[in-house]
Amino acid sequence: MVIIVAKLSNKEQTFSKQIIYKNRGMDLETMLNNSNNYYLELDKAVIHKKPTPIGVVKVSYKDNHKIIDRGYFKEQSTLDYNGIYKGKYIDFEAKVTQNKTSFPLSNIHAHQIEHMKRIIKHGGITFLIISINQIVYLLKGEDFLDYIQTHQRKSIPYDFIKTYGYEIKYTYAPELDYLKIVDKIYF
Amino acid sequence: MVIIVAKLSNKEQTFSKQIIYKNRGMDLETMLNNSNNYYLELDKAVIHKKPTPIGVVKVSYKDNHKIIDRGYFKEQSTLDYNGIYKGKYIDFEAKVTQNKTSFPLSNIHAHQIEHMKRIIKHGGITFLIISINQIVYLLKGEDFLDYIQTHQRKSIPYDFIKTYGYEIKYTYAPELDYLKIVDKIYF
Repeated sequence: MVIIVAKLSNKEQTFSKQIIYKNRGMDLETMLNNSNNYYLELDKAVIHKKPTPIGVVKVSYKDNHKIIDRGYFKEQSTLDYNGIYKGKYIDFEAKVTQNKTSFPLSNIHAHQIEHMKRIIKHGGITFLIISINQIVYLLKGEDFLDYIQTHQRKSIPYDFIKTYGYEIKYTYAPELDYLKIVDKIYF
Repeated sequence: MVIIVAKLSNKEQTFSKQIIYKNRGMDLETMLNNSNNYYLELDKAVIHKKPTPIGVVKVSYKDNHKIIDRGYFKEQSTLDYNGIYKGKYIDFEAKVTQNKTSFPLSNIHAHQIEHMKRIIKHGGITFLIISINQIVYLLKGEDFLDYIQTHQRKSIPYDFIKTYGYEIKYTYAPELDYLKIVDKIYF
């Protein structure tokens, strides 16, 4: 990779701000999917979002194709994203909260907490990506589990996330370079 | 684990045959899901089937729940099952063919072949589980890719699968102990 360090012109600074502004308006899932595609193209990691599980109630057939006439969204019992990076299994969940002072734990289900414990036990990497107050943090599974095991609260205070989480900065490509943080804390 | 080696009584032999008969009638996906649940309960591995991706065309809301009024099934660009075993990333696909002499390659899409190559390159374990002639085989990703790269055929002959594949025997629990084969060939 070529890294060019140079003072940005006013025009470039405006462009740079526009990117950040654009990204902030984009939803977290889209930015992560774009980042994962970027990693895939660069052959850096193979990480995909799992499809949302659907309960199918009624189907019909049209031109040999199965059509869903009635269905509903189910809860994922695992986390949303998983794959392989530097030979290691990686598994995480991404959540946005509009709450400014804390991350409500209703965002993460009991099954998902059990899943995270299992992944750590089996030698995998697991974490949460939390968007709060327009800042995106990576919170290690270990820190998240420590917090919920020692506190009887229904949410994680923003101060805890600021202290223990790692900020994932918005960049041009990939939009959210979370593997940079993974490199820093896991490798 | 305690292994009891003893001659089976006639009654036990009948029971054992019933299990095999029962399993043969069961579909491959159910047997693999049951086996994965068994591995999960024993804390041996964390492997899940990915949900089938759905294209949602029309939704409505009822009592605050989102209902799918029209949707269709999409193709998975990755493989169906993935997870972690002994600290390693594992990723595989399971297919049944009614064809007795070969496994049609139309069962595995181009995206999935690319995905398998990537997994191997990144140090993961990938394979196919193929049910053909009522026998379930594990075919290593490496052997599968070698075959399709050197042959211009539209299917893999049964003889190739018999020679290079590893038979996964039906057992009581787990129903398809494919990790026993994984142990043998990857660890």
